[in-house]
Amino acid sequence: MSRFLIFGLLLATCSIVFASDPSPLQDFCVADPKSPVLVNGLVCKDPKLVQADDFLFRGLNLMGNTSNDVGSNVTQVTVAQVPGLNTLGISMARIDFAPMGINPPHTHPRATEILTVIDGRILVGFVTSNPENRLITKVLKKGDVFVFPEGLVHFQKNIGHGYAVAIAGLSSQNPGVITIANAVFGSNPDIAGDILAKAFQVDVNVVYKIQSKF
Amino acid sequence: MSRFLIFGLLLATCSIVFASDPSPLQDFCVADPKSPVLVNGLVCKDPKLVQADDFLFRGLNLMGNTSNDVGSNVTQVTVAQVPGLNTLGISMARIDFAPMGINPPHTHPRATEILTVIDGRILVGFVTSNPENRLITKVLKKGDVFVFPEGLVHFQKNIGHGYAVAIAGLSSQNPGVITIANAVFGSNPDIAGDILAKAFQVDVNVVYKIQSKF
Amino acid sequence: MSRFLIFGLLLATCSIVFASDPSPLQDFCVADPKSPVLVNGLVCKDPKLVQADDFLFRGLNLMGNTSNDVGSNVTQVTVAQVPGLNTLGISMARIDFAPMGINPPHTHPRATEILTVIDGRILVGFVTSNPENRLITKVLKKGDVFVFPEGLVHFQKNIGHGYAVAIAGLSSQNPGVITIANAVFGSNPDIAGDILAKAFQVDVNVVYKIQSKF
Amino acid sequence: MSRFLIFGLLLATCSIVFASDPSPLQDFCVADPKSPVLVNGLVCKDPKLVQADDFLFRGLNLMGNTSNDVGSNVTQVTVAQVPGLNTLGISMARIDFAPMGINPPHTHPRATEILTVIDGRILVGFVTSNPENRLITKVLKKGDVFVFPEGLVHFQKNIGHGYAVAIAGLSSQNPGVITIANAVFGSNPDIAGDILAKAFQVDVNVVYKIQSKF
Amino acid sequence: MSRFLIFGLLLATCSIVFASDPSPLQDFCVADPKSPVLVNGLVCKDPKLVQADDFLFRGLNLMGNTSNDVGSNVTQVTVAQVPGLNTLGISMARIDFAPMGINPPHTHPRATEILTVIDGRILVGFVTSNPENRLITKVLKKGDVFVFPEGLVHFQKNIGHGYAVAIAGLSSQNPGVITIANAVFGSNPDIAGDILAKAFQVDVNVVYKIQSKF
Amino acid sequence: MSRFLIFGLLLATCSIVFASDPSPLQDFCVADPKSPVLVNGLVCKDPKLVQADDFLFRGLNLMGNTSNDVGSNVTQVTVAQVPGLNTLGISMARIDFAPMGINPPHTHPRATEILTVIDGRILVGFVTSNPENRLITKVLKKGDVFVFPEGLVHFQKNIGHGYAVAIAGLSSQNPGVITIANAVFGSNPDIAGDILAKAFQVDVNVVYKIQSKF
Repeated sequence: MSRFLIFGLLLATCSIVFASDPSPLQDFCVADPKSPVLVNGLVCKDPKLVQADDFLFRGLNLMGNTSNDVGSNVTQVTVAQVPGLNTLGISMARIDFAPMGINPPHTHPRATEILTVIDGRILVGFVTSNPENRLITKVLKKGDVFVFPEGLVHFQKNIGHGYAVAIAGLSSQNPGVITIANAVFGSNPDIAGDILAKAFQVDVNVVYKIQSKF
Repeated sequence: MSRFLIFGLLLATCSIVFASDPSPLQDFCVADPKSPVLVNGLVCKDPKLVQADDFLFRGLNLMGNTSNDVGSNVTQVTVAQVPGLNTLGISMARIDFAPMGINPPHTHPRATEILTVIDGRILVGFVTSNPENRLITKVLKKGDVFVFPEGLVHFQKNIGHGYAVAIAGLSSQNPGVITIANAVFGSNPDIAGDILAKAFQVDVNVVYKIQSKF
Repeated sequence: MSRFLIFGLLLATCSIVFASDPSPLQDFCVADPKSPVLVNGLVCKDPKLVQADDFLFRGLNLMGNTSNDVGSNVTQVTVAQVPGLNTLGISMARIDFAPMGINPPHTHPRATEILTVIDGRILVGFVTSNPENRLITKVLKKGDVFVFPEGLVHFQKNIGHGYAVAIAGLSSQNPGVITIANAVFGSNPDIAGDILAKAFQVDVNVVYKIQSKF
Repeated sequence: MSRFLIFGLLLATCSIVFASDPSPLQDFCVADPKSPVLVNGLVCKDPKLVQADDFLFRGLNLMGNTSNDVGSNVTQVTVAQVPGLNTLGISMARIDFAPMGINPPHTHPRATEILTVIDGRILVGFVTSNPENRLITKVLKKGDVFVFPEGLVHFQKNIGHGYAVAIAGLSSQNPGVITIANAVFGSNPDIAGDILAKAFQVDVNVVYKIQSKF
Repeated sequence: MSRFLIFGLLLATCSIVFASDPSPLQDFCVADPKSPVLVNGLVCKDPKLVQADDFLFRGLNLMGNTSNDVGSNVTQVTVAQVPGLNTLGISMARIDFAPMGINPPHTHPRATEILTVIDGRILVGFVTSNPENRLITKVLKKGDVFVFPEGLVHFQKNIGHGYAVAIAGLSSQNPGVITIANAVFGSNPDIAGDILAKAFQVDVNVVYKIQSKF
Repeated sequence: MSRFLIFGLLLATCSIVFASDPSPLQDFCVADPKSPVLVNGLVCKDPKLVQADDFLFRGLNLMGNTSNDVGSNVTQVTVAQVPGLNTLGISMARIDFAPMGINPPHTHPRATEILTVIDGRILVGFVTSNPENRLITKVLKKGDVFVFPEGLVHFQKNIGHGYAVAIAGLSSQNPGVITIANAVFGSNPDIAGDILAKAFQVDVNVVYKIQSKF
């Protein structure tokens, strides 16, 4: 019986995931790329078989496709793309914005984000938690750096004349993204309309209409 | 010059806060209740002056006032109420629901929540992060316990005939609450209407109308 | 060869356990309930197969059986009962007390406890570490909340007229319980009598007598 | 007004303590030795004034005084003795044993201990948590190393013919010690006799007699 | 007596530093920029006085001055430049390389680094710990991303024809840099020549000659 | 198919490692000694099969062989030698020094070290990070204890007349060692000579000569 088959059986109904971020216990622990359902690798490659490519991602210079409803695109470089990031507590992303494009309000449940504008002018903001819900906002231009604290709702909007692009570092190998509109109005299945109607203080038909878009 | 005055001066433009949760370094570190702007106490009481009341909160048996737009009320027992919780990584809450009342979609940026129903029938749910945005939902009755993982959007709704009440434990001394509708449509100042219009795929006038409610 | 058999072989002489509490690396990592010797699950269910019941426990409204030497009963809701708690750093418990019942002196090696009295009157206390060994104690009534810091010796006693019940949150998915009398006088095998005689400054026959009860 | 006086006022009713162990945020943060009630220093010396002596302790070669009820002595080297240990997560201790001396059952609420025997023969043991309460025990001779996991009850006994001595490392700058007999039977004030009588299944007069020794 | 003077007195012989990275305890804790010797701020601004500029750095688009012995320059964006990064566990850097310039072998004692090449061709490498000391190396071009695990010795060299530039994220608010040559041969005061001669297996005069360059 | 064979297949191209240090989730998690490539054990022994020997190491009283280029020897007691150390965050070491012997400049990427001199006179030192690179140094005699903060370059030299020996505690189950000379001049393959020549400001032939020694 081949190793592959055994693995396949193991993976039939369970995924082996690795579930803690801080202080690595060895120089590195490269996630095994052969485990298809593996989000965060616990089964690591033999250190002797580790190679430079395990720590490499190519193409962050390429513009993402921003032809979508919001006019933006995020290219992530997390442990899913770079198995060598496993246990090391950091990841990277490139964000492209079409003219007028937005990166809609979202949270990273497991990471703070630090972002620098490579090109363009971007309006950014984050909102503090209850009860203040204070909006802290800034217009960034090329070379500006801004911080979005862990777990807080934040957004970006291209307010320049052309395309804009930013590079971000995030303080987790798998920061997670919760796009508010998608999680609240686009979940599978839908959250009951009356709950959202009361939460957002709108008629339930407005809720249904928004839900139909996601 | 009195100690109070010196403290006042110190507190005029800065708040001394304590900013990390894990493993305490001593038996306890009771937050000094004299520091008015202190959210998480770093300046701790002399251990000799610590007393049982520093670890005590009274009145969690009392129903909160649910006469509000959403028909629910959360009574929090965090480090702000119990200074002895400082550095100890846990807090508690009581949630009351009027008939039909909801605890609207929200996240705790720094805590997982475990909740048990003391009375009533409650529909609960949480939504996983992108790209699945899967809704995991359950109807809970008296004695049922449910878990809401850290950082995920979740909600509860009273679906019984009378009032309902639940007790929750949260894995942080200061879990934080981000009520989605308030953070997104009720921030101070408002997030620009065109950003929310594009994010939620609605007309900007719908955004303005929702914002006017928060 | 079936997956079950392979698992059986794996489990013949080793248990796959997960050994760290803080910041999860994904939304959740539900412990695989098929692993019988698994205390803290590392082998997690495929996220697609995860369902609401993985986060659910039923029956915390039921009184535990307090017909025992100490007149109390603890119903635990840890990762052993709720696999969805895995990696999420919290658990819950219900404590029932017969009249005059006690929850004898014990420690949680991996958790702080926050407790609220649902019914009855309870005397609670904890003792600080060396050299003070100060007893901090309080009489709690319905609706009172109290904190027992991580690792410290603590106890509760029903001092009301009827049964008493409390609900507690604990800051670990697997807090552990070390009942002092059981660990010291009831270990398997026994700690040598002369060691305990010297430690507790009693005749060795007193030690033997206590050991015979556990 | 002198700095000392201001500090005195600050320290009159509060102690500034530092409450978290993991990953330092700078090369070191030497606890300020001028803060008398400071257990774990948050107010650190100016790095420019730090000197080698801040990382130094002298005299661990000296035998401690074992003329006491248990015939042992622990010389601790924690952040209280070496301010440079602040934030660095480790400490050291020397344990001396008179012939027949014991280090009575105790826990370290915040540390694992690793111990090596420098001289003599020592019986060591630790007890696992509920429900097993399994005693794991070994006779150690010179050069043997043994591990006592965090939070578990453990003890040592000199079973050689002369004095014995061991050196231990502990995984916290302030591990804490809870000597079971002292915490349970020697607290200030005493734990009520009926509680201990029920907990240890003995007559209350036995409890009173033990309490009178501590 | 003014607040400034009191602060000055406090700061005369001690620096208030904050010493732990993980999970923030509040939305943010902006380091007080008024504390001149403060590396990692514990004394935080009143949240009400916090503003967007506390999370902002400008000028990361500007080329650093590479007219030095190694032909490279690092522009850091850590908590020292952006007080809002305090407690949030991440920072950023820009690295400029003149033609043939190197970023000499160094370690970050408190951070993993993830780097992307904005322009040019860069040879990068890191060396694993004892006993393998394996060099893992790669030639990066524009858009490539590479990871340098926490604590390991690593370096970069511009191997293209013009200037090169990279942007890096680092998993600490204050990662620290130990440039090997400077720490070993350029310390203040010097490490004794005979120690380095034996360590590097060279004549002591070679050591003296290298030391004279730093 | 035997369990051993399945394990062998699993281990053919991957090593199962455990990658995080803090708070254990159970009393202990003994690394399975049957997994040959396992550095930090995730697959743990069944608690029922755990025995005292899993927490035991013998022979730390034995002098190591110091007949080598640097005249010193380190005997490590990490999770590789004591599987019971897994997840417990500490290890131990014995360092022997021949007359004039040195423990050359090195870092522990994952641990602070606390060391006590058992016999002899030892010159010790560590160097702070950039930009100060300050050498903090001390002559230690029998019974002295000294601290080397996590990640910093440090060294020891026997300056007494005979052999010297020290015992150290380290704040990780697998601290790692990076001997500077070996990592920089003795990597496999070599770091390019021109990089080291520029980094150490020496002629490339000096680099080649040093590299030839490692």
